[in-house]
Amino acid sequence: MSIVNENFLRLDGRYLFQEIEKRVRAHTQSSPQARIIRMGIGDVTCPLVPCVISAMHRAVDDLSHADTFRGYGPERGYLWLREAIAQQDYASRGVVVSPNEIYVSDGAKSDTGNITDLFSPTAVVGIPDPVYPVYVDTNVMSGRTVIGLPSDEANDFVPLPPDDRRLDIVYLCYPNNPTGAVITREALTRWVDYALRTGTIILYDSAYEAFIRDAALPHSIFEIEGARHCAIEFRSFSKTAGFTGVRCAYTVIPHELHVTASNGASVRLSSLWERRQGCKFNGASYVSQRAAEAVCSPEGRAAVQAQTDHYLSTARMIRERLQQMGLRPCGGLHSPYVWAHTPEGMDSWTFFDLMLREAGVVVTPGEGFGACGRGRFRLSAFADADDAREAMDCMERVIKN
Amino acid sequence: MSIVNENFLRLDGRYLFQEIEKRVRAHTQSSPQARIIRMGIGDVTCPLVPCVISAMHRAVDDLSHADTFRGYGPERGYLWLREAIAQQDYASRGVVVSPNEIYVSDGAKSDTGNITDLFSPTAVVGIPDPVYPVYVDTNVMSGRTVIGLPSDEANDFVPLPPDDRRLDIVYLCYPNNPTGAVITREALTRWVDYALRTGTIILYDSAYEAFIRDAALPHSIFEIEGARHCAIEFRSFSKTAGFTGVRCAYTVIPHELHVTASNGASVRLSSLWERRQGCKFNGASYVSQRAAEAVCSPEGRAAVQAQTDHYLSTARMIRERLQQMGLRPCGGLHSPYVWAHTPEGMDSWTFFDLMLREAGVVVTPGEGFGACGRGRFRLSAFADADDAREAMDCMERVIKN
Repeated sequence: MSIVNENFLRLDGRYLFQEIEKRVRAHTQSSPQARIIRMGIGDVTCPLVPCVISAMHRAVDDLSHADTFRGYGPERGYLWLREAIAQQDYASRGVVVSPNEIYVSDGAKSDTGNITDLFSPTAVVGIPDPVYPVYVDTNVMSGRTVIGLPSDEANDFVPLPPDDRRLDIVYLCYPNNPTGAVITREALTRWVDYALRTGTIILYDSAYEAFIRDAALPHSIFEIEGARHCAIEFRSFSKTAGFTGVRCAYTVIPHELHVTASNGASVRLSSLWERRQGCKFNGASYVSQRAAEAVCSPEGRAAVQAQTDHYLSTARMIRERLQQMGLRPCGGLHSPYVWAHTPEGMDSWTFFDLMLREAGVVVTPGEGFGACGRGRFRLSAFADADDAREAMDCMERVIKN
Repeated sequence: MSIVNENFLRLDGRYLFQEIEKRVRAHTQSSPQARIIRMGIGDVTCPLVPCVISAMHRAVDDLSHADTFRGYGPERGYLWLREAIAQQDYASRGVVVSPNEIYVSDGAKSDTGNITDLFSPTAVVGIPDPVYPVYVDTNVMSGRTVIGLPSDEANDFVPLPPDDRRLDIVYLCYPNNPTGAVITREALTRWVDYALRTGTIILYDSAYEAFIRDAALPHSIFEIEGARHCAIEFRSFSKTAGFTGVRCAYTVIPHELHVTASNGASVRLSSLWERRQGCKFNGASYVSQRAAEAVCSPEGRAAVQAQTDHYLSTARMIRERLQQMGLRPCGGLHSPYVWAHTPEGMDSWTFFDLMLREAGVVVTPGEGFGACGRGRFRLSAFADADDAREAMDCMERVIKN
């Protein structure tokens, strides 16, 4: 018997973005003069907004004086931040979430991965395909069976709940990464009703909700009746406010959310998460939490909305250009991501290599997001607007030849 | 079959420090005027040193301009920080550690907990008793069998490797939390030799190495020959430089460290950790990494050493006062912690309640650290020096009565 967790050995080769980096590095080493425009990874490029910068400077100053110094904060985050989130991200949209149901962390990637600690290795997990690859990998690491839920044009990129098998846990992410698709209230209600009927837990990733511009679309799963009994929601300041280097996110676990243990006991999932975080986490950085608090202020909200508006105008331009190229794009309207077909069904890594070599543009190969990503690719609007236009010109030139 | 990880249900009641907080809160609610001096939790109180504050302000400014903005950093930390650590924390003491063997994170609590993802649930784990409770709890959460290794006056608080049973993994922490004891090169060599002989992995927590003042004592397990083949080391800026609210730490996994899988394949533990972090972590905050870099500068090192000197002088005072009270203290010489006997073998929670109620002092009950902590308690020197003296006066008054 080995002492190693052998589930790691079942993981597919390399993590998608590490593989992309490797290929880009090899290209720039062989062609050091080549201009490269990165439209691949979903990293923001705009600097932090002024009121966030001021809040961070004040927080640093707090740490320089004994009477305002802060050491360990609460593992679940400072109350002032959790109150600001409950008010600005939920109450302002008519959704009741208590500050005590909010768990602040260093990132939604940590939370969506670490939440798997709470579940049995025998739980069956439904994951849409294509998908952000870490949902799959973190479950494979824990030995769970993953069922792919295909999503494509046929179902508007929103899989239906399966009627032929039970899912213990299901991941949903809308606006979606990588497809940029959104979910309607009706489709989300169908999932909540299914979960309530079958005892499924929905892990709802709404990291991109700040990009929604259609008032009819839900920002939170807790806008849907019954969701407090079946869902956990993940949110992040990364894409909302450019915090990919600052690191601050949060997870909402409603008090009502229980699962039944084998001995019949009813177990509150929030109590397990508190215990998990109490043992394996020591709170997000004080400076990052003050930065996040500033995002929740009226001034902060206006400033970060101007920033997401800017990214959305780039996304729309990308969508239109891909449309003109005949690549049948999806997304880009309420999302920074545009998902499209490769020309003539070309293999997505072949297309990646072609775009890198001939157009000097880094795209994300669809295959890295699952089997349904074959012959597709993702572009991210988190680029400089001029760079993005130039990238479209370069791609068009290569594709037309 | 339940979908919940039922190992959580095997955990002992509450997490130690959460229980302490609950009792302190109940006391302050019933006696709102009572003065309370906290000598319990190991949280720092001195503000950050000036060159760290300056570095953090500069880092915040970097985030305010498009040309210096930083989004996602490398999951393992920026190279400039890993190079500074390799030089200042290892090369300067004659220990060769490559920057590529260093993994920067948001905290040693995260790393010592998350490292358990790499091991099989069937691995047998040896953990000294008394001990920082999260080593035990994180392994219980993953379903592992934990073997306690008693440490007390009889073995100078350093357990010997067992000769009657195999340990797959063993945790060692020196200078120790909670006892404040140190390990000699000879004793550490005995553990390394044992691990090499039996294929055991040593998880070495040296979060308190900055408090060592005896040149003969090892700061790193990698000062011991052969350790690169059997050990992982955890370090933190939390206690070294007052970063408990800033959040920055690191883990060293040598390239030589391999384990054998059931199929006979040799697996590099660093590659599993890279995959784990690639899926469940997105790097420490940029501002925190710049702060840590400043700690590694000559100016930073001098300033933080003055701070640990200050805490150590408080620790020595506490040790002397407890000695005078007849409570047979250990630690406090190369550690901010002092470990002592309760008067007349009093139960440690009873002593906690007595000290809280009658002396207004928060101690940490030894029992919270394991069975060997019965009739013991821990005091932390991370307090204001005047407060600490007052706390000793108050405790002495109650104990003498």
